[in-house]
Amino acid sequence: MQLGMIGLGRMGANIVRRIVEDGHTSVGFERKPHHIDELKAELGDSFDGTTDLKEFVAALETPRVVWVMIPAGATGAVIDQVAELLEPGDIIIDGGNSRYHEDIKRAAELSPKGIHYLDIGTSGGVFGLTRGYCLMIGGEAEQVEYLDPLLKSIAPGIEAAERTPGRTGAPSTSEQGYLHCGPAGAGHFVKMVHNGIEYGAMAAYAEGLNILHKANIGASHDAEFSAEETPLEHPEYYRYDIDVPEVTEVWRRGSVVASWLLDLTASALYADPNLDSFGGRVSDSGEGRWTIDAAIDTGVPAPVLSAALFQRFSSRGESLYADKMLSAMRQAFGGHHELPQK
Amino acid sequence: MQLGMIGLGRMGANIVRRIVEDGHTSVGFERKPHHIDELKAELGDSFDGTTDLKEFVAALETPRVVWVMIPAGATGAVIDQVAELLEPGDIIIDGGNSRYHEDIKRAAELSPKGIHYLDIGTSGGVFGLTRGYCLMIGGEAEQVEYLDPLLKSIAPGIEAAERTPGRTGAPSTSEQGYLHCGPAGAGHFVKMVHNGIEYGAMAAYAEGLNILHKANIGASHDAEFSAEETPLEHPEYYRYDIDVPEVTEVWRRGSVVASWLLDLTASALYADPNLDSFGGRVSDSGEGRWTIDAAIDTGVPAPVLSAALFQRFSSRGESLYADKMLSAMRQAFGGHHELPQK
Amino acid sequence: MQLGMIGLGRMGANIVRRIVEDGHTSVGFERKPHHIDELKAELGDSFDGTTDLKEFVAALETPRVVWVMIPAGATGAVIDQVAELLEPGDIIIDGGNSRYHEDIKRAAELSPKGIHYLDIGTSGGVFGLTRGYCLMIGGEAEQVEYLDPLLKSIAPGIEAAERTPGRTGAPSTSEQGYLHCGPAGAGHFVKMVHNGIEYGAMAAYAEGLNILHKANIGASHDAEFSAEETPLEHPEYYRYDIDVPEVTEVWRRGSVVASWLLDLTASALYADPNLDSFGGRVSDSGEGRWTIDAAIDTGVPAPVLSAALFQRFSSRGESLYADKMLSAMRQAFGGHHELPQK
Amino acid sequence: MQLGMIGLGRMGANIVRRIVEDGHTSVGFERKPHHIDELKAELGDSFDGTTDLKEFVAALETPRVVWVMIPAGATGAVIDQVAELLEPGDIIIDGGNSRYHEDIKRAAELSPKGIHYLDIGTSGGVFGLTRGYCLMIGGEAEQVEYLDPLLKSIAPGIEAAERTPGRTGAPSTSEQGYLHCGPAGAGHFVKMVHNGIEYGAMAAYAEGLNILHKANIGASHDAEFSAEETPLEHPEYYRYDIDVPEVTEVWRRGSVVASWLLDLTASALYADPNLDSFGGRVSDSGEGRWTIDAAIDTGVPAPVLSAALFQRFSSRGESLYADKMLSAMRQAFGGHHELPQK
Repeated sequence: MQLGMIGLGRMGANIVRRIVEDGHTSVGFERKPHHIDELKAELGDSFDGTTDLKEFVAALETPRVVWVMIPAGATGAVIDQVAELLEPGDIIIDGGNSRYHEDIKRAAELSPKGIHYLDIGTSGGVFGLTRGYCLMIGGEAEQVEYLDPLLKSIAPGIEAAERTPGRTGAPSTSEQGYLHCGPAGAGHFVKMVHNGIEYGAMAAYAEGLNILHKANIGASHDAEFSAEETPLEHPEYYRYDIDVPEVTEVWRRGSVVASWLLDLTASALYADPNLDSFGGRVSDSGEGRWTIDAAIDTGVPAPVLSAALFQRFSSRGESLYADKMLSAMRQAFGGHHELPQK
Repeated sequence: MQLGMIGLGRMGANIVRRIVEDGHTSVGFERKPHHIDELKAELGDSFDGTTDLKEFVAALETPRVVWVMIPAGATGAVIDQVAELLEPGDIIIDGGNSRYHEDIKRAAELSPKGIHYLDIGTSGGVFGLTRGYCLMIGGEAEQVEYLDPLLKSIAPGIEAAERTPGRTGAPSTSEQGYLHCGPAGAGHFVKMVHNGIEYGAMAAYAEGLNILHKANIGASHDAEFSAEETPLEHPEYYRYDIDVPEVTEVWRRGSVVASWLLDLTASALYADPNLDSFGGRVSDSGEGRWTIDAAIDTGVPAPVLSAALFQRFSSRGESLYADKMLSAMRQAFGGHHELPQK
Repeated sequence: MQLGMIGLGRMGANIVRRIVEDGHTSVGFERKPHHIDELKAELGDSFDGTTDLKEFVAALETPRVVWVMIPAGATGAVIDQVAELLEPGDIIIDGGNSRYHEDIKRAAELSPKGIHYLDIGTSGGVFGLTRGYCLMIGGEAEQVEYLDPLLKSIAPGIEAAERTPGRTGAPSTSEQGYLHCGPAGAGHFVKMVHNGIEYGAMAAYAEGLNILHKANIGASHDAEFSAEETPLEHPEYYRYDIDVPEVTEVWRRGSVVASWLLDLTASALYADPNLDSFGGRVSDSGEGRWTIDAAIDTGVPAPVLSAALFQRFSSRGESLYADKMLSAMRQAFGGHHELPQK
Repeated sequence: MQLGMIGLGRMGANIVRRIVEDGHTSVGFERKPHHIDELKAELGDSFDGTTDLKEFVAALETPRVVWVMIPAGATGAVIDQVAELLEPGDIIIDGGNSRYHEDIKRAAELSPKGIHYLDIGTSGGVFGLTRGYCLMIGGEAEQVEYLDPLLKSIAPGIEAAERTPGRTGAPSTSEQGYLHCGPAGAGHFVKMVHNGIEYGAMAAYAEGLNILHKANIGASHDAEFSAEETPLEHPEYYRYDIDVPEVTEVWRRGSVVASWLLDLTASALYADPNLDSFGGRVSDSGEGRWTIDAAIDTGVPAPVLSAALFQRFSSRGESLYADKMLSAMRQAFGGHHELPQK
């Protein structure tokens, strides 16, 4: 089967590699020619690429399958352009991180032209090439079925995890790592919540490891105290010099918190035990924010996921004004002086 | 009635001033002679002071009433010293911010000697002299009744707030601003929770005002985007240049969030509209921490009070290691680069 | 000055009462005639009312001032209807709880017709008649100035609170309880954040009082334990039978947490000490939700305000599915049995 | 090597089975004879058991290795009893979930008698028999080394996870699933934080899946509105009928949130897709609480871990009083009626 890929950055190129590996072919569109040349050199006849959108569309067999894999902010304009060139029966896939609201709108706009639209939330990151991509798909069932050979090649396959007890017979697509979640937007909706969970789980590890990191404060604790500071009541309870990288390694085997995130954390800490290469300003992409919006709209309590999101804001200094306000109030009612900068 | 006061710092001296104003007398103990001299010059015959603990005890009429008003860390040792000099029937009051666990222990230790012990959580801060102190009292009922003339003078009195609808007849002590909350420790327990609530309410204002402070980000918002950052979806919704000091002023009258904390906030913002004199490192005293401990012990959900406490920790840079960990994970799974320091 | 009021429910009628008290006049529109009749009987010549929108508009002097004070959901349609009947130079005020996005849209729609639009966030609730309403105003400065006589009458006035130290001279409008916050939407934006803060402050009191409510669990604590439950480590620390209504009363005078919300809490607890008339399903109006949306859009950490909102969702049973999921996980990894329903 | 095991419940028996499988022998103590008989029948000569503590101690080779694997509440008394019977050089291991404070105390008490004490936090739950147990060890290095053959057999071994990139040579013990974390208490300290993280990660999944569960509310949403309720602004965004069990299955392969907890969740949902066998009252063991205590002591922000803990309290109805308080306040200031029970 043939896949048209718009955007040959890391994600797009790796998806092309996975399908070619499985015997499919691909045509790519990309503005930077060197990306095309490299992939061509690597994949030979199974791949062709162009910097011209019309040529790209012309090179595709009908019904055309066009997977758009570019940053969320640019996706809308590119889909509009390519849709102009497509014909009824063709399929556009947004494999990026668009907000699912956009999917609902785009599907409705493309439908009168007979163009089908799928949104595929794609998880896997830099390891997707070898590990496969987990695919969360929204759109019409007929098109999802039609694309099954490609989806199967992109997804990790059943051997990527032990089979869930009780499941028998031919594996479902979910067991192979791809799932039709519902109509337009459902794929990005599920991917959005996936990322929301990711934020929460990441924060759980980070907070816990921070406690281990501070477990030695009793050793050096200054016995002096003032009305401004709370003395450590039991310094004898905090005299552990915990090797955090080793702890993340030991938890990888047998523990309840074993996970792929933990594997990566252990790996990062092995390479940089004190995390000296990081400054602590954590970015957040849209999905974490949209997840909280969805929680609020649906009336679902999300104290953990929202705390994780807000911690990222704080890491970037966004609570400074609020913190100054607290110091100002303390001075106003109690005459308390602010703690000095360290 | 006569009050012995150990510690003539701001709080201790102001309590002495309030009772002398009402016709009582006081003897003070304080290591710094100039504090004694100043108060003596101001209050004349109604007050006497000494830097010698034995003289202090000798100067008190029996049953002696000894109010200890010094930093929490030093309170225990001083109470032990003075207790050595007291006689059965005498009364020791801890008016500071001791943990209530200490009160339970001290009351049990002093009881066999016939010495009575009261813990009095005292709220009012730098305004207590004119506004009166809200007193939360733990100990035996008989001693609380005995001290009623002093407590009444220290507390704000019923005219400090409109009477609660439905309450009639002679005002209860709670309506005058002092309350016997229960046996030893109950006063500091209630004061502890009071401070826990204070943390939560302060954070509520600070977070809300921070949103107002940022309400203009749409005016300058950079339309560029990348995979690392979420563009502002609707910059047109964030083009307000809100005058935060004026907003805190307007809320003081008629609004649901009118409060003494808000009065102080408006005052602080009037004096320093951009909070330039603060750096944003917020201290926390023990009560906020102990409140969460109590919530955990009693199984009471306290998501708001704990979030307020943890925000203070974050303001002091204590989440840095956790934040680095998040950046390390993001780089590990997504190849994401950390946001640069501003 | 004359005020046209659409909606003579409690809020609308009380605003009319306040301005008439100050010598202004009013014309009201309301579908329920008995509301009109009652107000007419009370206010005499200073008030007239009608159930016919055309009559209402015809009865107003130009430039007409039309204040719309109806539930947020109905506001849009009514504004559309009345705008059809107005002329250039007339003024429409939305005094309800619309989302500020709507204000931006409406102001832009009405501007070409020469109709001015103000959004006035109004706080004060059932006590506004006597206490005055805190007014947060968005729109053009010229119209806000024109309406000054009416706004001054509706607001509480400077005597409603002690003057902020340092403020001198003629009082600003903020000191009288009304404030022009910025262009269209700014009034509802500030009111929205006001309500977000209200949620946080309310939750702070509720959590703290819940701890006091549970402070006696050590008295009855069952010494038995199992692998499923954590025994109370120090039952001797939780043997206080705290009188929560009395505590809220004592805090009203002199304490740092004194506030109007606390006044109301003390009042509610005096009337119903065990809160038997409540079941604990707490509603939330839009402003709390929108505040979190705004925090997310502006990148402002709001862990306290969001925790307060989510607790309301939880109070309505919306975490049930999540809780079942936790029990299912615990059973899956640990063989733990779920705690039985009480 | 020989292991003495006190407590032949599921955990104790499975540890015995793992070491016997590896060629070691064991003697067990247990009050219930049928547990002994069953294990004896299964393991033959490699195991012997007794209901008499003296016999148990007599049957052990010196230096005796006594692993105590019983509920945390009973551990202290049993260790006291067995310690009476041991000799200098013997080793006691607490493999349960004691608070690490206890370990510090016990180690100090046993040290003068020449008895060594290790605390081993043990994770693995009902799957430990086949999966191996992750062991977090506190105590003296010499004893940990001495016990290496047993620890190696109990732990999962390096093949339980892919090797962390960059690690070469002979695998460390952490790579085999056991780690000497530090002196007395360090094992239970690390296990405590492990469980705190577990709470946070579990809550992250549960909250996210709850959003998916509610993703269809727009389909049935009632268009009516009142001042008490917020209408859903965009019902068209919430018309997804998400198959939550299938989503948990698809995430197991290739996604960032793949984890052992997710495997178990998928398994639980496959067996009981609507979670009908659960009522939603979630227990919490001590470790989650102690983790927050440690966060507070060390000044580490833990908003996610604490929100997860508090959600469990809420699931058991412990926020009811606080929720009633919120309703009472809303009625007091706004005249709002509480939402009716469903």
